[in-house]
Amino acid sequence: MPHISLPEGIPGIRGPLSIRPDVARPLSAFCETLMRGENSLSRGERELIATFVSSLNDCFYCENSHGGVAQHYLQCDSTFIDKVKEDYQSAAISDKLKSLLSIAASVQKGGKQVTEAQIEKTKMLGATDLEIHDTVLIAAAFCMFNRYVDGLNTWAPREKSFYIDRAKHAAELGYRIES
Amino acid sequence: MPHISLPEGIPGIRGPLSIRPDVARPLSAFCETLMRGENSLSRGERELIATFVSSLNDCFYCENSHGGVAQHYLQCDSTFIDKVKEDYQSAAISDKLKSLLSIAASVQKGGKQVTEAQIEKTKMLGATDLEIHDTVLIAAAFCMFNRYVDGLNTWAPREKSFYIDRAKHAAELGYRIES
Repeated sequence: MPHISLPEGIPGIRGPLSIRPDVARPLSAFCETLMRGENSLSRGERELIATFVSSLNDCFYCENSHGGVAQHYLQCDSTFIDKVKEDYQSAAISDKLKSLLSIAASVQKGGKQVTEAQIEKTKMLGATDLEIHDTVLIAAAFCMFNRYVDGLNTWAPREKSFYIDRAKHAAELGYRIES
Repeated sequence: MPHISLPEGIPGIRGPLSIRPDVARPLSAFCETLMRGENSLSRGERELIATFVSSLNDCFYCENSHGGVAQHYLQCDSTFIDKVKEDYQSAAISDKLKSLLSIAASVQKGGKQVTEAQIEKTKMLGATDLEIHDTVLIAAAFCMFNRYVDGLNTWAPREKSFYIDRAKHAAELGYRIES
């Protein structure tokens, strides 16, 4: 049961956002721009970073909802998403993306965990300053979203198929909440 | 030196925000609403929660900039702010605020660290659902801001007086970035 009174049947972050529409509007606009705006990192890559960080934070709702959307964008199956979460270093992704995921993993532990060596390697592998910036901010943002979702003990469907089935629709809708 | 190229002389979060104005606009609007909007928690109390979480995350810039603003709003001296950071349980604050700070400390560790017992106690001490919601979100948000600031190794003045001297002006300006 959620720690505070929330409308029933609204999964994950949508529950608390619904009781604070004045905060939900800019927060969802931030997520929309960061995760879906113009970017040299594809939407699929950004969702993969979000899924990976949510998995490190053990946030079931975020891990599965963003995992579903990543799977939709990347047109892959769920074993690929699971592989990235469990052992990204040997997953079939570019060395640049592996290096960005390693930065994301450091950010999840704490900002100061990111090392000069990681940054240098990531730049050598072709990542731009803006891609490093966005990776740090995505990883940091999901350290917020994960804590918001679990810190209030929000309800979420437990069937993983729920998230995969709704991913296409979720990707069409985007993150922006206007009301 | 920052991990990526940032304009010189802009302290803390303002540096990376300046290179991503499309993201800075909704993110700063979110911070403005959460930290300064209409709320039964005073601006000073919210800044104190932000300062406390930033201190737990050892983020020098956020801890001092929000500590300065908290000190301005609460019309206290810096020893009071230091006391809350170091040992809030014996600080001269209400039991309700102590209880909200204990929830914030749990959120800093991870969303699942918040316990039913903490929530029950906080409600018994008079906290509303919305105050618990906002405390969880402020704590979560500063887990993001702290990681963003330190994950990019941003520059910040080391003199604590800098943050205290600018707090009044910072409080007048607010957080919203329009350009």
